[in-house]
Amino acid sequence: MATHPFLSKLKAAHTQSNNWLCVGLDPDMDRLPDRFDKSISGMESFLKQVVDETSDHCVAFKPNISFFEGLGMDGLALLKRLIAYIPNRVPVILDAKRGDIGNTSRMQAVFIYDELGADATTLHPYMGRDSVEPFFSYKDTFNFVLGLTSNPGSANFQQLEMKNGRDLYQNVMATCSEWNREFGNVGVVVGGTQEKLADARKVDDDLLFLIPGVGAQGGKYDDVVEKGKNREGLTLINASRSILYGQSNYRTNIAELIT
Amino acid sequence: MATHPFLSKLKAAHTQSNNWLCVGLDPDMDRLPDRFDKSISGMESFLKQVVDETSDHCVAFKPNISFFEGLGMDGLALLKRLIAYIPNRVPVILDAKRGDIGNTSRMQAVFIYDELGADATTLHPYMGRDSVEPFFSYKDTFNFVLGLTSNPGSANFQQLEMKNGRDLYQNVMATCSEWNREFGNVGVVVGGTQEKLADARKVDDDLLFLIPGVGAQGGKYDDVVEKGKNREGLTLINASRSILYGQSNYRTNIAELIT
Repeated sequence: MATHPFLSKLKAAHTQSNNWLCVGLDPDMDRLPDRFDKSISGMESFLKQVVDETSDHCVAFKPNISFFEGLGMDGLALLKRLIAYIPNRVPVILDAKRGDIGNTSRMQAVFIYDELGADATTLHPYMGRDSVEPFFSYKDTFNFVLGLTSNPGSANFQQLEMKNGRDLYQNVMATCSEWNREFGNVGVVVGGTQEKLADARKVDDDLLFLIPGVGAQGGKYDDVVEKGKNREGLTLINASRSILYGQSNYRTNIAELIT
Repeated sequence: MATHPFLSKLKAAHTQSNNWLCVGLDPDMDRLPDRFDKSISGMESFLKQVVDETSDHCVAFKPNISFFEGLGMDGLALLKRLIAYIPNRVPVILDAKRGDIGNTSRMQAVFIYDELGADATTLHPYMGRDSVEPFFSYKDTFNFVLGLTSNPGSANFQQLEMKNGRDLYQNVMATCSEWNREFGNVGVVVGGTQEKLADARKVDDDLLFLIPGVGAQGGKYDDVVEKGKNREGLTLINASRSILYGQSNYRTNIAELIT
């Protein structure tokens, strides 16, 4: 079977960067460095500088659409320009956490993949198969379904024990495994402790993990890669705030994260 | 305790309309009636006509943001104009199915409530409390968390049995009850069969249900109201396609739904 285009891009980007870092692009006007004007145009200069300086030093960019929405309509227009600006060789995961009934999810996929031009996105599993399938049927894109998230609220439902003895997130991951065997473009978001990450890996050796796991959200890079990589050795470790709004320049922030 | 502003609007709208119908606004260019130009401007005329002719005959409007996104950036600008156009006395539920980690959900709430001006929205429960709380803390708005949806995929996770003997959606609803007692502005989306609706009502007598339950998605209006209403007699029964793209004019479509 030919390698999926997203995975080919990921591997090529890793050959260049020699790490598995995904740079999260979360534009927050309150944290914009002083040297930029507090405006859409200032934010655009900031984000393009981040892209320019880090695109050889990461394996993907992950703009979070909600932060762009938080800037208003002009923020969404900025998002579209930014995705177009990112070099084509670096995959763009648009973090959108979508999922609705089938005919609605189809509209969401049109917006994310056709209108905005992302290579991948993130999805809520709660509504089940017909809520995610319209995304999977875009064959050249990749989709990360929420499995275990790293926020406190993951205890409310994701970590509830099911009748079959597994936690809900493990059931979700097992279903994602089936979907990935069928469609070939499904991964999962898995955060939490090292122990949880190791447990999650037991569900399936092959699933690609997108891990919100180092920097502001905690976790040591080498350990997270070791626990999170799939059989092929691939993974994506996201860091947003610690790179964009960290102590030093972006590349130094990256270097500090991975050591 | 004073009545929540959303509930006051809902009651007043019911006094006018004498039904519990929520008109779903799902703009689909492929289904736009021939008398309108197939353009953003034609779609705008269509939607404004729907609003003009139905605002006295329903209790709420529920635009689905994904359908507007499906029209591209100009579609989102249209959504903002449409929400502003809807008479202030009729509540607007922006169906967005959001939910992310806390600082991201805050941005989503800013977009939906401050930028777009909705009175209420819909939320995914999967990421738990800190993913929904930023919405709840907008005190004058109302929030419908997905409980049991009416699509086939609801079988994948929502209807899985938990260790405590209840289905996942019943656990979600029980948690929503607690949240509603704490925040006073939390309801749930509950669809599915009449039997499921009755089961769901057993969880809490007080929770407001938003029910995707008549018209294209099936279910008889009187039965759905009877099973779905809360202690105060309030509910919201959504219909989208059967009103917008039905056989007759919008008001006749409504009249047929409720008889």
